[in-house]
Amino acid sequence: MPVRLIESLATTAPLAEIFSDHSVLRAMLDFEMALARAEARLNIIPQSAADAIAQAAKAGDFDGATLAGAALRAGTPAIPFVKALTERVRASDSAAAGYVHWGATSQDLCDTALVLLLRQTQSLLESDLDRLEQALFRLAEQHKDTVMLGRTLLQAAPPITFGLKAAGWLGAVSRSHRRLENGFQHSLVLQFGGASGTLAALGEHGLAVAQSLATELRLTLPDAPWHTHRDRFAELVCTCGILCGSLGKIARDISLLMQNEIAEAAEPSGAGRGGSSTMPHKSNPVGCTITLAAAARVPSLVSSFLSSMVQEHERAAGGWQAEWSIISDVVGATGLAVASMAEVADGLTVDAGQMRENIGATRGSIFAERAMMLLGHKLGRDTAHQLLEEAVRRSVEQKRHLSEVLGQMKEVKDRLGPDDLRDLEKPEQYLGSADEFRKRLLASSRRKKSGGKE
Amino acid sequence: MPVRLIESLATTAPLAEIFSDHSVLRAMLDFEMALARAEARLNIIPQSAADAIAQAAKAGDFDGATLAGAALRAGTPAIPFVKALTERVRASDSAAAGYVHWGATSQDLCDTALVLLLRQTQSLLESDLDRLEQALFRLAEQHKDTVMLGRTLLQAAPPITFGLKAAGWLGAVSRSHRRLENGFQHSLVLQFGGASGTLAALGEHGLAVAQSLATELRLTLPDAPWHTHRDRFAELVCTCGILCGSLGKIARDISLLMQNEIAEAAEPSGAGRGGSSTMPHKSNPVGCTITLAAAARVPSLVSSFLSSMVQEHERAAGGWQAEWSIISDVVGATGLAVASMAEVADGLTVDAGQMRENIGATRGSIFAERAMMLLGHKLGRDTAHQLLEEAVRRSVEQKRHLSEVLGQMKEVKDRLGPDDLRDLEKPEQYLGSADEFRKRLLASSRRKKSGGKE
Amino acid sequence: MPVRLIESLATTAPLAEIFSDHSVLRAMLDFEMALARAEARLNIIPQSAADAIAQAAKAGDFDGATLAGAALRAGTPAIPFVKALTERVRASDSAAAGYVHWGATSQDLCDTALVLLLRQTQSLLESDLDRLEQALFRLAEQHKDTVMLGRTLLQAAPPITFGLKAAGWLGAVSRSHRRLENGFQHSLVLQFGGASGTLAALGEHGLAVAQSLATELRLTLPDAPWHTHRDRFAELVCTCGILCGSLGKIARDISLLMQNEIAEAAEPSGAGRGGSSTMPHKSNPVGCTITLAAAARVPSLVSSFLSSMVQEHERAAGGWQAEWSIISDVVGATGLAVASMAEVADGLTVDAGQMRENIGATRGSIFAERAMMLLGHKLGRDTAHQLLEEAVRRSVEQKRHLSEVLGQMKEVKDRLGPDDLRDLEKPEQYLGSADEFRKRLLASSRRKKSGGKE
Amino acid sequence: MPVRLIESLATTAPLAEIFSDHSVLRAMLDFEMALARAEARLNIIPQSAADAIAQAAKAGDFDGATLAGAALRAGTPAIPFVKALTERVRASDSAAAGYVHWGATSQDLCDTALVLLLRQTQSLLESDLDRLEQALFRLAEQHKDTVMLGRTLLQAAPPITFGLKAAGWLGAVSRSHRRLENGFQHSLVLQFGGASGTLAALGEHGLAVAQSLATELRLTLPDAPWHTHRDRFAELVCTCGILCGSLGKIARDISLLMQNEIAEAAEPSGAGRGGSSTMPHKSNPVGCTITLAAAARVPSLVSSFLSSMVQEHERAAGGWQAEWSIISDVVGATGLAVASMAEVADGLTVDAGQMRENIGATRGSIFAERAMMLLGHKLGRDTAHQLLEEAVRRSVEQKRHLSEVLGQMKEVKDRLGPDDLRDLEKPEQYLGSADEFRKRLLASSRRKKSGGKE
Repeated sequence: MPVRLIESLATTAPLAEIFSDHSVLRAMLDFEMALARAEARLNIIPQSAADAIAQAAKAGDFDGATLAGAALRAGTPAIPFVKALTERVRASDSAAAGYVHWGATSQDLCDTALVLLLRQTQSLLESDLDRLEQALFRLAEQHKDTVMLGRTLLQAAPPITFGLKAAGWLGAVSRSHRRLENGFQHSLVLQFGGASGTLAALGEHGLAVAQSLATELRLTLPDAPWHTHRDRFAELVCTCGILCGSLGKIARDISLLMQNEIAEAAEPSGAGRGGSSTMPHKSNPVGCTITLAAAARVPSLVSSFLSSMVQEHERAAGGWQAEWSIISDVVGATGLAVASMAEVADGLTVDAGQMRENIGATRGSIFAERAMMLLGHKLGRDTAHQLLEEAVRRSVEQKRHLSEVLGQMKEVKDRLGPDDLRDLEKPEQYLGSADEFRKRLLASSRRKKSGGKE
Repeated sequence: MPVRLIESLATTAPLAEIFSDHSVLRAMLDFEMALARAEARLNIIPQSAADAIAQAAKAGDFDGATLAGAALRAGTPAIPFVKALTERVRASDSAAAGYVHWGATSQDLCDTALVLLLRQTQSLLESDLDRLEQALFRLAEQHKDTVMLGRTLLQAAPPITFGLKAAGWLGAVSRSHRRLENGFQHSLVLQFGGASGTLAALGEHGLAVAQSLATELRLTLPDAPWHTHRDRFAELVCTCGILCGSLGKIARDISLLMQNEIAEAAEPSGAGRGGSSTMPHKSNPVGCTITLAAAARVPSLVSSFLSSMVQEHERAAGGWQAEWSIISDVVGATGLAVASMAEVADGLTVDAGQMRENIGATRGSIFAERAMMLLGHKLGRDTAHQLLEEAVRRSVEQKRHLSEVLGQMKEVKDRLGPDDLRDLEKPEQYLGSADEFRKRLLASSRRKKSGGKE
Repeated sequence: MPVRLIESLATTAPLAEIFSDHSVLRAMLDFEMALARAEARLNIIPQSAADAIAQAAKAGDFDGATLAGAALRAGTPAIPFVKALTERVRASDSAAAGYVHWGATSQDLCDTALVLLLRQTQSLLESDLDRLEQALFRLAEQHKDTVMLGRTLLQAAPPITFGLKAAGWLGAVSRSHRRLENGFQHSLVLQFGGASGTLAALGEHGLAVAQSLATELRLTLPDAPWHTHRDRFAELVCTCGILCGSLGKIARDISLLMQNEIAEAAEPSGAGRGGSSTMPHKSNPVGCTITLAAAARVPSLVSSFLSSMVQEHERAAGGWQAEWSIISDVVGATGLAVASMAEVADGLTVDAGQMRENIGATRGSIFAERAMMLLGHKLGRDTAHQLLEEAVRRSVEQKRHLSEVLGQMKEVKDRLGPDDLRDLEKPEQYLGSADEFRKRLLASSRRKKSGGKE
Repeated sequence: MPVRLIESLATTAPLAEIFSDHSVLRAMLDFEMALARAEARLNIIPQSAADAIAQAAKAGDFDGATLAGAALRAGTPAIPFVKALTERVRASDSAAAGYVHWGATSQDLCDTALVLLLRQTQSLLESDLDRLEQALFRLAEQHKDTVMLGRTLLQAAPPITFGLKAAGWLGAVSRSHRRLENGFQHSLVLQFGGASGTLAALGEHGLAVAQSLATELRLTLPDAPWHTHRDRFAELVCTCGILCGSLGKIARDISLLMQNEIAEAAEPSGAGRGGSSTMPHKSNPVGCTITLAAAARVPSLVSSFLSSMVQEHERAAGGWQAEWSIISDVVGATGLAVASMAEVADGLTVDAGQMRENIGATRGSIFAERAMMLLGHKLGRDTAHQLLEEAVRRSVEQKRHLSEVLGQMKEVKDRLGPDDLRDLEKPEQYLGSADEFRKRLLASSRRKKSGGKE
């Protein structure tokens, strides 16, 4: 089932595939097969029944659309699915039919199927995250000496390096990668509790079946069923939200750097990328745009999920039923954002010359703080501050460089020599701890890779 | 394109159909055909080109999945779509190919296509709203004398009638129906502005083409293009959010009334409805549950839409691109909620006997306010209040009716005769203005129907 | 009660004043006084009681903090407030004490008090909206001929006028102003229903008291009490959300135009505005920043409100109790955004020279569409398109103007004369319907002012 | 600064105190004092300056309201605050005035001050969480044998124990407690980067000052400044959101159990709790209601925070400025919810007799699954299913117990003896693994307490 046009900017093809009917049905069948196997092994149902169920499940040609229609009537996909599977089993082995879904409840099936699907998304997301982190790491290394304007409230500020900027992006992404791993690890647990979460239909064998089923499906067995305790999924959803926030920040930065008047960076313009239907000259920040669209959608989906956690007693009326589409939307959007930014970072063009030019175009005003500090030691800070305000004013009015203006002010000339003035606007000399911060960020991101703790 | 399993509780089949690839493509083709027709009529492009475009558009066998994939690369479905249409036209009339999408920009196409799709959803939503309102009206009339407990903070309170309750539901729904009509009316406007929203490519003919195009598509011509002014869609999305809130309230009420211990109402149990995969005895509030799931999802989608309104300059980088999936999700969920509650209200079983029994089971404690007022006139309010507190305490402890307890308290016996005491717990006698309120609500809902103003 | 530091960027002083304890208590006392007056007039309570209540209410020195603490215990401010007022009345007239709050329930008091407070906020918001609209109108008139770059996806696009841009902003603001008026009008209604919404304690006099109370408070009498039907407030909250979205869009635009490299506009730098604690040279977009902060907060508050509409039976357990802080936050943030943007628009500096320079800096690439259209008529569109792609490529590589490059291409020279080429990059000649759209927007905004309909 | 009436259901007094002007100013002064001390120790500023700054800071009688007003003008509280402190220092030591806030930027001050405030909230939140967990643990132990209805979609389901229910609540709370600890640990880090995040003004001493400042304030030193990387705060905010979701679930459950018709549990009715202004008989679920109100507000605040993470370059225009009120609201609401539920759980009344009665009132229908399993072994599942459907139908129609109906069906009588039938409806015999799950949950919550890993 392909991505639909109406959501073509909302997920990726591989993630859409994981949440397709075919794949959802596969996961549901996997649950029922594994359940039957586990119960047969413990002599709770006949081995022949387990075999018949496996046989029917493998055939697996259920019609998603029909089931989806029936799901809406039943309030859950599980009921029509189990019915359809039972009929399929009955056709080959009528005695076995009664053992389908034995001891389980609808939500056991739906939740565990979703967990199985989420496990598939994890490797997709993580491999794109790896690619993104490698690209950011490379940028942070390549551009450790590439000076550029700092920008605060969208206004020019003292210089930074692009290496530091990229390292800052990397730091946020790698912290969120760690959170995502934890989120998946905590979420990929079996759901199996029967009607009221006690596995009563299995008598004293409930826990043993649960353990065996978890082993079959290679899932962790939680302390207890969690039909109305959705905090584990919530954690995963939140980590996606945090990650998307950080990706949105990177995308916003890059799209701002791509403005014609700034022109310090450019997205790669691969096949089909970035054109305009009417403007042949354009190179649009498409990857960033798509990422920003995801970052605009995911926070609210997180909110929906959290609101839906208020679930009644042993099975919710509403909160749970809202989850499937929320979670698949969150993961789809997050995966799209990660993939987009991986491509952007991987092919990012950085124009170091333009970055330096943009520093120059401020005519030294961003070094006013620096000049004030230099003069402050000699003149006192208050006097220095007044001098600088005057100098900046003249620099702006006369469109001359701050150092030049300062060089003509008597109080300054006596204190700062020509060398001092010449060096004043050298960005390399006003980077403070930029490179130490950059290195610390890179080191941490590596430590995380190799499994160390923050 | 059918509803997918993963979103089987998130929309209805007819709404999914409207947002299917086939239907989206149809709307996009309708825009391009109408544009060509309008431009040919004004001699801006040759009539033969318009004919060739119409021809190609009618054939219309584009592959949604391919376009969706390319849309993700291009950042919009419009670019690959226009390219595909152009190729199709070129195949039959190479001169005409150059006139496809003449003077328009991608967003003109996407926004107007969405408007055309939304117009289709309007009649679906409104007809289900009509059905819901009729059912609620009927309930409000049938049960004008059906007394039941009022319930505040989920605790028993003085009686109401079920007629008043249904009328209150109706009032909220019909107010939202009116808002929805306004929302659609304000939103169903043409988008047509060209690259920068000036229609520059059409020289001095821009406005004439726009007017003609609007006429072709039977859409209102707005004052100006609105590429980054999304308040009209925002209004529509908000009205859906408000409507879902009111539907959720009704669904919550009914699902609470359906609790076994209360048992005052029941959803209809049509085919496939309300069973349980493990519990043959159950009659689940499926329609309410689905509605509550929608009410849990829509508010956050509204929030996403509003956040996305912060769109840059003449075309947004992110905000706009988030909209298609948000809007289709909002409308899908709203439509599902309306349809579900229409079905629920239409077939609702109301157990007037049980309602009266539940009043009786409070043993008169809900009439303490009434008794206090009666005694207050004779004893002073403070003394009355103390007496009542004592009486309620005894009533609860001794599991006896309040009137009986009161009848044995000397200070009361002297003031309230046996008739007074017998009548004290008659709910019919403590309904205040319930029926006047009920009638006013019904009258307003009718006025709205017939086009009057609130 | 002043604005607190922790929320100093979240509301304005006048709005904080309206939601201060003093003002909230005033509104609550107004309700109780009016209720007593209305009931005395209808001979439901003694006139002397109404007088005593009015007397006590006017003294009005209740301690907000003590009541707030008790409110948290009681689950509503109404209970401790009524108790405190009753004690106050009892002190002067013990017989009157029993008539305080006669027939009303806590929510009647709280909701109506909130309505009274909201009425006060309306004039504040509307007067700032008027100021903003006037400023935008003025900008749209003054700059009708000021050409500037269109910008799509943050990339240069064909020119617009700043007048059109300002008119577009105005259009959105004035549409939302209209919505806000409607929202207030629909919301400013009396709440009065007694314990279960039937006014049972008032016997057959409920509706008459309600009508009289509404008249006293100059509020509309709704069809019925609306304790758990919150759609009216929801509409008001939504209109604030839509307005903030549009204000955020304007703020985003202006903050982008203020970037040093673009420098086309600047916020006014009034007292205390826009400095930096470390950077003397900076002129920050403070008003825009504050507006964007509001636009970031309000959408989610809207979502909270909509989620909270799912309220149980006759009085909600949770949904209602969440409303006071949501609504006061929404109105505070909206008012702050309106006031900030009114100040920004009122004093906005527009640098028409820089706007023209930024067009020039694109070296004509934004006119490629135009050149293609001109050549298309003579060479066929396909050939024209290829020529232009080549010309744009050369223009970028050689850093020469597009018209110059085109002038040296043989195929072009034969078709476009020197005059054509000289005019090609004149933005005034490629504005299409910009001014017609501008005028239509201004006309609509005026019609709205004078009460006409859209 | 006390809790205001308008937000009296939105936070607790101790949390309001932490976010009061006095406390916010204290945190800001602590930052400036510690900075001066650290810089003096490293000989970057004179010791005398540090002393003068400490002196002025300790006096500390700044006017929050004046600063809040100026903050709105400046776009941050830091600018007026630093100015005020500088004036205060200048008054006693004019030379020292120039060293106030040396090398720091506004956001360093604001973020670190917020971190210091959050540290204060941690112990409040955690101690209430401990109290809540202890109460839930106790309930889970005391009621390990207290049988009650399971309830799915608000309908009766096979029995559980109240001990299991309480243990499930405890599991969710203790998992969130762990998350909250992590969230605080990751968030309580120093912010210190200077204008562009490079500490350039401190030359090569930046990192050393940062380390020293972190030590002074007992905060972790992060890899680098994080002015526009807000993922750490986002994590903390999300953990609050998840916790509130779980608390909301518990509150919903308890408020449902408190319905008159169900009456299985009751909140403690401490001083000022749970009354009604009009209904003397009521015992409202006040603590649950307040918790549900918090759970309705926090998810959207989380969403706001996540949306606001898209922050530009080195200092955001809008996103950051939205944070203070969001974070203080989130923590206030979360703290209120925890405190409320701690009180509720601590004093919860559980009516085991009523629980058993409510099971009985279903007349055995919830044991239909059980009967089907028993008969299935002997009759085949299909036949058993048909028999049971018929039996349930008769049981409901005739208002007789299921076991009684079954006892009169010939096919059953031959297979189930009188003992079987008598035991069929014994809830104790149909609890499956309930107690094992309960024990596992309790054990995990203890392990977490003692520091073990999940």
